[in-house]
Amino acid sequence: MAATPNAGGQAWLEPPPRGVIERAVAEAIAEDLGGVGDLTTNATIPAAARATAEFRTRTPGVVAGLTVAAAAFRALDPDVRFEARVADGDACAAAATVAIVDGSARAILTAERVALNFMGRMSGIATLTYAYVAAVAGTRATIVDTRKTTPGLRAFEKYAVRCGGGHNHRFGLHDAVLIKDNHIVAAGGIEAAIRCARAHAGHMVKIEVEVDTLAQLEAALSHPIDAVLLDNMSPAELQAAVAMVAGRVLTEASGGVNLGTVRAIAETGVDLISVGALTHSAPVLDLGLDFTT
Amino acid sequence: MAATPNAGGQAWLEPPPRGVIERAVAEAIAEDLGGVGDLTTNATIPAAARATAEFRTRTPGVVAGLTVAAAAFRALDPDVRFEARVADGDACAAAATVAIVDGSARAILTAERVALNFMGRMSGIATLTYAYVAAVAGTRATIVDTRKTTPGLRAFEKYAVRCGGGHNHRFGLHDAVLIKDNHIVAAGGIEAAIRCARAHAGHMVKIEVEVDTLAQLEAALSHPIDAVLLDNMSPAELQAAVAMVAGRVLTEASGGVNLGTVRAIAETGVDLISVGALTHSAPVLDLGLDFTT
Amino acid sequence: MAATPNAGGQAWLEPPPRGVIERAVAEAIAEDLGGVGDLTTNATIPAAARATAEFRTRTPGVVAGLTVAAAAFRALDPDVRFEARVADGDACAAAATVAIVDGSARAILTAERVALNFMGRMSGIATLTYAYVAAVAGTRATIVDTRKTTPGLRAFEKYAVRCGGGHNHRFGLHDAVLIKDNHIVAAGGIEAAIRCARAHAGHMVKIEVEVDTLAQLEAALSHPIDAVLLDNMSPAELQAAVAMVAGRVLTEASGGVNLGTVRAIAETGVDLISVGALTHSAPVLDLGLDFTT
Amino acid sequence: MAATPNAGGQAWLEPPPRGVIERAVAEAIAEDLGGVGDLTTNATIPAAARATAEFRTRTPGVVAGLTVAAAAFRALDPDVRFEARVADGDACAAAATVAIVDGSARAILTAERVALNFMGRMSGIATLTYAYVAAVAGTRATIVDTRKTTPGLRAFEKYAVRCGGGHNHRFGLHDAVLIKDNHIVAAGGIEAAIRCARAHAGHMVKIEVEVDTLAQLEAALSHPIDAVLLDNMSPAELQAAVAMVAGRVLTEASGGVNLGTVRAIAETGVDLISVGALTHSAPVLDLGLDFTT
Amino acid sequence: MAATPNAGGQAWLEPPPRGVIERAVAEAIAEDLGGVGDLTTNATIPAAARATAEFRTRTPGVVAGLTVAAAAFRALDPDVRFEARVADGDACAAAATVAIVDGSARAILTAERVALNFMGRMSGIATLTYAYVAAVAGTRATIVDTRKTTPGLRAFEKYAVRCGGGHNHRFGLHDAVLIKDNHIVAAGGIEAAIRCARAHAGHMVKIEVEVDTLAQLEAALSHPIDAVLLDNMSPAELQAAVAMVAGRVLTEASGGVNLGTVRAIAETGVDLISVGALTHSAPVLDLGLDFTT
Amino acid sequence: MAATPNAGGQAWLEPPPRGVIERAVAEAIAEDLGGVGDLTTNATIPAAARATAEFRTRTPGVVAGLTVAAAAFRALDPDVRFEARVADGDACAAAATVAIVDGSARAILTAERVALNFMGRMSGIATLTYAYVAAVAGTRATIVDTRKTTPGLRAFEKYAVRCGGGHNHRFGLHDAVLIKDNHIVAAGGIEAAIRCARAHAGHMVKIEVEVDTLAQLEAALSHPIDAVLLDNMSPAELQAAVAMVAGRVLTEASGGVNLGTVRAIAETGVDLISVGALTHSAPVLDLGLDFTT
Repeated sequence: MAATPNAGGQAWLEPPPRGVIERAVAEAIAEDLGGVGDLTTNATIPAAARATAEFRTRTPGVVAGLTVAAAAFRALDPDVRFEARVADGDACAAAATVAIVDGSARAILTAERVALNFMGRMSGIATLTYAYVAAVAGTRATIVDTRKTTPGLRAFEKYAVRCGGGHNHRFGLHDAVLIKDNHIVAAGGIEAAIRCARAHAGHMVKIEVEVDTLAQLEAALSHPIDAVLLDNMSPAELQAAVAMVAGRVLTEASGGVNLGTVRAIAETGVDLISVGALTHSAPVLDLGLDFTT
Repeated sequence: MAATPNAGGQAWLEPPPRGVIERAVAEAIAEDLGGVGDLTTNATIPAAARATAEFRTRTPGVVAGLTVAAAAFRALDPDVRFEARVADGDACAAAATVAIVDGSARAILTAERVALNFMGRMSGIATLTYAYVAAVAGTRATIVDTRKTTPGLRAFEKYAVRCGGGHNHRFGLHDAVLIKDNHIVAAGGIEAAIRCARAHAGHMVKIEVEVDTLAQLEAALSHPIDAVLLDNMSPAELQAAVAMVAGRVLTEASGGVNLGTVRAIAETGVDLISVGALTHSAPVLDLGLDFTT
Repeated sequence: MAATPNAGGQAWLEPPPRGVIERAVAEAIAEDLGGVGDLTTNATIPAAARATAEFRTRTPGVVAGLTVAAAAFRALDPDVRFEARVADGDACAAAATVAIVDGSARAILTAERVALNFMGRMSGIATLTYAYVAAVAGTRATIVDTRKTTPGLRAFEKYAVRCGGGHNHRFGLHDAVLIKDNHIVAAGGIEAAIRCARAHAGHMVKIEVEVDTLAQLEAALSHPIDAVLLDNMSPAELQAAVAMVAGRVLTEASGGVNLGTVRAIAETGVDLISVGALTHSAPVLDLGLDFTT
Repeated sequence: MAATPNAGGQAWLEPPPRGVIERAVAEAIAEDLGGVGDLTTNATIPAAARATAEFRTRTPGVVAGLTVAAAAFRALDPDVRFEARVADGDACAAAATVAIVDGSARAILTAERVALNFMGRMSGIATLTYAYVAAVAGTRATIVDTRKTTPGLRAFEKYAVRCGGGHNHRFGLHDAVLIKDNHIVAAGGIEAAIRCARAHAGHMVKIEVEVDTLAQLEAALSHPIDAVLLDNMSPAELQAAVAMVAGRVLTEASGGVNLGTVRAIAETGVDLISVGALTHSAPVLDLGLDFTT
Repeated sequence: MAATPNAGGQAWLEPPPRGVIERAVAEAIAEDLGGVGDLTTNATIPAAARATAEFRTRTPGVVAGLTVAAAAFRALDPDVRFEARVADGDACAAAATVAIVDGSARAILTAERVALNFMGRMSGIATLTYAYVAAVAGTRATIVDTRKTTPGLRAFEKYAVRCGGGHNHRFGLHDAVLIKDNHIVAAGGIEAAIRCARAHAGHMVKIEVEVDTLAQLEAALSHPIDAVLLDNMSPAELQAAVAMVAGRVLTEASGGVNLGTVRAIAETGVDLISVGALTHSAPVLDLGLDFTT
Repeated sequence: MAATPNAGGQAWLEPPPRGVIERAVAEAIAEDLGGVGDLTTNATIPAAARATAEFRTRTPGVVAGLTVAAAAFRALDPDVRFEARVADGDACAAAATVAIVDGSARAILTAERVALNFMGRMSGIATLTYAYVAAVAGTRATIVDTRKTTPGLRAFEKYAVRCGGGHNHRFGLHDAVLIKDNHIVAAGGIEAAIRCARAHAGHMVKIEVEVDTLAQLEAALSHPIDAVLLDNMSPAELQAAVAMVAGRVLTEASGGVNLGTVRAIAETGVDLISVGALTHSAPVLDLGLDFTT
C-alpha cells in the first residue's frame, strides 16, 4: 500500500470533462449570487482591489477538486491565477497549503464558498475512500463506490472516489446491467433474466447478478455473467462464495460494510467491496481560505 | 419542545418551488439514465408490468423530501400514484412506511435510486437538525444553517433544515450582508464597512457583523446593525457577549458547535447557533423501497 | 444632491454577475440571429473587414449598461476592444460619446441592436430614476424600485435603478417579507400574520407590512416589524403616519407617485418612496452607434 | 377603422408557441421565487386554502397576454382554472374584468406579479399600437414595429403589436435583408450591396433598402428590391418618394414618428410606418388582480 | 431469421428516456417555429379547427420513432390523440398506415415536419439495419452500430438500430474502452495500454482492442481483454483471426462493410460486424402524413 | 460553372452564429463523454502529451464545417491550434489535407469523433449539393434545400447546402409562407388562403403557393404571391407552367428530383429546384484524422 493514494503519480486521474465542471460551477455560483451578486463584498471591497489567498487544510486528508475550485474563481475573474501546490489524490497533513489564488479581491471573496463547498465535499469523499483503501491494504479487494451519490454531482463524487484510491462501479443505469431480485421475479427466474439481459444489452455491457444465498449464487454461475454481487453475506458466507466462484467471475461484497468490518470482508478473498457511505455519508474535509494580502 | 419537529402541523413547511424540484429531478434522472435508460429493467421487466412499493425507514429519523420523491416517479410515469403516509418533518420510527408508490413497474424501478438519493440526503439533514434542536430544547436558542451546502442543492438542503425544526440563515450572498474580517480590512475599518453596507444595500437587507472578541463586538454595536456573529467564542465569552449586547441585536454563535457542545452554547443565552455540519456532514437517513406486488 | 448620480465615484456600483450578463446577452443574440445570422451583413460586409464605432447619446441622460453592451460585442468577436468613456451612473449631455468599440465589422454591425436594446432600456431607467432622485433632493426620502420589472431582466433593471441614484427594494418574493391584505385575512388578522412570518422566515429576513389607514398602522406597530408600506395615502396622512411611527420602523410611501407628486410626498418625512414606473414605464434613452471608420 | 383592434374576431391572432411561453414564464417565476419561494405567502396562507380573483383593468386599453398569464398560474398550480372574459386584442374600458382565476390561494398570490408583469407590458404595447393604428385610420398606411424590443421578449412584444392592430416588420437579422448605409459603403455601392444580397440570401427573403434622400431612392429603385425604408424624411419628401416609387415596391416611413406626426406621415401615401416606441417606450397598462374570495 | 425484426414482440424495445425525447422534440420545434410560429397555418387555419391524419409509408421499411412523433404533436396540443397502428421495429409494406393522429388542425399541421423528420430518419436507420441483419441471417454474426452518429441524436439513432434488429456497440467514450493504435503508441505498447486500462477503468467496463494484423491479435490475446476489433481484414484474415481467438474473446469485424460484402464477412465466423453506414449514411424512409378529415 | 463551388472566394459564406456552434458542439461532446470522459484516452495517454494530426479526405468532395471542427477541439483544449488548409466550400481531391490540429493529445483524441461527425455530415451534404449544382450548370435553375433536415441541426445543414453551391429555401415555418392543399381547404379556397396570409403575415414575408396542376397555377397567379411550388409535375408540365408564369413570380420545381432527372427539370426553365435528399439522405463524406506526431 502506497503512503498516499496518489503515489506513483496517477497521471491517469482525469477530472470530469471541462464542460461538466463549468456547468456545475456556473450553477453553484448562480445559486449563491442570484441576480444581485455578493452584497457585502460589492459594498465594502473596491472594484480594483486585488488579493492573494491560500487554500489550507484544517485537518489531514486526501485532496480532490482542485480543478473545480480553479474553475469557480475563473468564472468570476477569467484572469485569476490559481496555482495548485498539491495534486488531486495527494494526502495532506493539517495546515498544508494546497493552492494559492491571486486576482480580483471581489472575485476571490465571492467565489470562496463555492470553491470550498466543492473541494470540501470532494476531499471528504477522497479521504473516507482512502481510509477504506488503507484498511484493506494487502488483500486482493478493491474498494468501489455505488449509485448512492448526490443528485447532480455523480461525476464529481465518482472522481473523488478515484482520487482516494477507490475504483468506480457502473456510472448509472445505462452503462452496465445489475440484475436484482425484482428483475428476476419479473423476468420469470434467474435464467430468463440473464438471457434477456444478454440478448438485449450491447456486447460491451457487463452483467452482474445480485445474490443473497449460496444457492442463488450457484444458479447464477451456470449462466454467462461477468460478476456477482454478494449481498449482506457474513464473512463466512463470503468465503464460501469466493470458493464456489473459483475465479470464474468477479465477486463483489456489499452491505454491512464499515471501517470496522471491511478488513474482515476483504480477507474473505472477494474482488470488490462496494461502500455506499463513500458518497452518501462522507463528512467534508475541513479546508479554509486564508488571505495573505 | 414538541415530540416531533412537525408537531402542530407546520402547514407552513413549503418545499422549493415546483420548477426547482422538476429541474433538479430531471437532471438527476438524466445523470442516471443517460440517453439509453435502465438497461437491466428494460431487458427484464415487461413494458406493461405494474408494481406497488413502499418507502420504509430502515432506522429512525425525520423525513424530508416526499414531494421530490414523488416528482422523480412522475418524471418517468406521469400517471403514477404516490401516496405519502407521513408528512415532511415527521419523526418516524424504524421500519415505518412513509409512502406508497403504485404504477409502471419499469418507472418505479428506474426512478427508485433518484428518489432515494434525494429523500435519504434530505431526511439525513432533517434528522441531524432535529438532534440539534432537541439538544437545545428549553433554551432561547434557534438552530440555523449556513452556506456550506451541496452545490446545486441549497434550496433542498435549507428546506430539509426547516423540516428538522431548524431555521434558515441567509440563502446566499445576495439576500443579506455578513461583514467579515476581510471586508472590514478592505473597507478601512468596521465603521466604514458598516456605513458602506448600509448605504448601498437595500433597506430590506439585514446586516450582520462577524466578531472574534468582545472589543470588536463593542465596536460593532455602536453602529446600526441587525445581528452579530460571535465566532469561535467560549461559552464564557458568549455569555459576556450576550450581556454586552443586551438584546439590542440578534446574537449568533458559530464555530466549534457539535452535539456535545451545543447545549452549553445555547445556555449562554445566544439567539442563534449556526451549524455547518447540518448540511455538509449529515449522514443519509437509511430508507428503502420494498416491492409489495 | 450631487451634480450626477455617479458623483463620488460609486465604486460600489457592481453590475449583475458575469454569468447572468452572459446568459442574457446570449439569449438576446440568439433571438436576433436565429440559426442563420445577419443575412444583410454577411452578404455585404467582407469577413475580414474591421470597423470602429462610437456609442453616442442622442438626448441627455444617465448611462447604464456599459458592461452589458461590451458583452454583446464580445459574444460575436472575443477580441473586440470596447472602451468605455464614461461610467455607469454618469449623467451625459446629448451627443456625448459614451464608448468606443473596435473590431470585426461584421460583429459590430450584427451586435449593434442587442447592445443598444440593453443599454437604451437600462439608461432609460437610470435617467428616470435620477429625475425622481433629483426631485426629492434635500429631503430624507430615498427612491426605491418595485417588483414591477420586465420578466427575465429584473437584475438588469434593479442595477439600472442603482445607476440612477435609487435604491433597491427586495429583489423578489424570496428575500423579504411584505405582508399585504390578503395575507392578513388568510392568516386571521395582522397579529397572526406577523407572528407566522416572524416564526417561519429566517432571522436575516426583514418584515414589512402594508397598511392603508392610520388605524392599521397603529395595529402593525405593536408587533416586531421592520418597515411599513403606507399605501395610497395623501401627504397629510403620510405626515401623520410618520409622526405615529416616530422612527421605530422604516416608512415607505407607495401609490400615486409621479414626478409631479413625489416632492410633496418626500416632504412628509417618509424614509422611502417606491416608484413602479421606474421599471415598468421608463422610455428608453436614445443612444446610437456611429461608425467612424 | 373597427371599434376595437380585435373586431372581426381575429381568429388568426396566435400567441408565441407554447414552448416559448412556458420557458419565459418559468424564467420569470424563477427570478421572483429563487430557490425559496414566496416567504410571505408560505408563512401566512395555509397550503390548502383556495381563492378566486379577477384580473381587472384600472385604465382603458387593449388587452394582450392572456395565454401568458394563464401559463404563469398553471406553472405553480397545474389544476388552476383560468377563464378569460375577453380575448387578446379586445379594447377594454377601465375596471373591466378580463379574466377570472380560481385555484390554490398560494399559487395565485405567488404568481400574481409575474402574470401582471407580462400582461401589463404586453397590453401596454397593444394599447399604444392601437393608438397609432387609430391615428392613421382611413389612410393606406400600416403601423409596423421594429427590432427595438426588450431583450429576450421579442416574440411577446411583436405579438402584442399584432394584438393592437399593428403588423410585424422582420423578426430579426435572420429573416429579411435591410441594407443600410454601412452595408452600402462596405459593399462598394448600392448596386453591389443589392447584388450581393440578392445572390446570397435565399429566394424567400425580401430585401429592403434604407435611403435618406430622393437621389438614393432613385438609385435603389433601379435594382430588384422589395421595399424601401425612407429614413427621417419630411412629409413633403415622403410624398415625393411615394410618387417616385409609384407602387413598384413597398414604402416604409421611419424616424420622427409620434402620435402627433403619424397622421401627416400616413397621408403622404406610404405603405408602412415603423414605430420603435411601440416596443421600446410603451408604458404598461395598469391591470390589477382583485381577490373575490 | 424472423420475417420482421420485431417478430416475437420485442417488448424490450424501449425508446430513449421520456426526458431525452421531450428535450429533443422541444429543440426541433423551436428550430422550426422560432418565436413566431407557423405563419401559414396561423393565417389560414382557424384556431378551433380539428383534423385527423394518417402516417403512411410511401415505400416499404422498418418503422422506428413512433413515440417521438407522438411527442412532437403533444408538444403543441397536449390533448392530441396519437394512435400507433404498428410498433417500432415492425416491417411495413408501402402505403401502410403506421399511426393516426387526431386533434387541433393547427397543431397537427405545424408539428408534421418535426414528426416526419424524426420518424423518417429513425425508420431509415432501422430499415438499413434490417437489410444488414437479413443479409447475415443464419450466421452467428450480430450487426452492431458505431459512434458515427448524428451529433445530438445518438440515443435516437442507436435505438433505431435496435428497432432494425441490430445491437448497440458502446454508447460513447465513457462506457467502454476501445484501445486503438494511438493509445498503444502513447502508452508504450499493447501490454502497457491494456494494463493501464484494466487498472483505471471500473470493473464493469469492458475492454476491446483494435488490431490490424494477426500478429497484433496474438499480442492482444495474451492480455485480459473482452473483445478484439479486427480492422479492415479480408475474409481470409478474419477467418484466421476467428480461429486464433478460438472463442476466448468476442470478435468484431470492421471496415469495408457494405451490403455486398457483409455476408462473406459474417461467414468467417466473427461474432460482430460493425457498420458505420447504419447511422452515418442511411437514407430516410419516405413517410407522409395524409389528412383524412 | 466554376471549377469548385467556392470559386470566386465566397467571402459571404458565413457559418452559423458562434453561439449556435458552441452549443451544438457542447451537446455533442456531452453525449460522447457523459460525466466520465474518454475512458481509454485518460487511461493510456499521459495528461501532458501533445500531438499533431491532419484531417484528410478519404474520397473527393466539397468540405464544410471547418469552424465546427475547430470548435470541437477548442471545447476540450482552449489553446489548441487548428489550421485550416482549405476553406468551407472548396472541392477537394481524395487524400487532401483539409486542416491540421495541434495541441493536447488527450483533447485531440477525445474530440476527434465529434469533429468528424459534424464535418463528415456537413461535407456530405455540400458534396451532394455540388453534384446537383453541377448537373444543372448552364441552366437558369438554382438548387435549393427543404425543411427535411436533421432535428436540431438545421442551421448546420443549410449552411452546408450553401457550401455546396446551393441556396436556402425558408429556414422554418416562421420566416416565410408556403400555402399547401390543407391550408387552401381550411381557408375556403385559394383566394381566401392568399388573402389571409397577405393580411396577417408581415410585409417582409414572402408567400409561395404549392400547386399540382396548371389549373391551380392559373388560379394562384391571379393573386399577389411571390413564388409557386410546382409539385410533382413532369418536365412537360413544368415547361408549360414556366410559360404560363412568364416571369411574374419565381417558379420552384419539387418532387421526383434526383441526379438522373434534375437536368431535364432544370431545362424546363424553372427558377428553383428543391431537393429534400440534400439534407435527408446525403451519405457522409469520408474524412479521417491522421496523427503525424
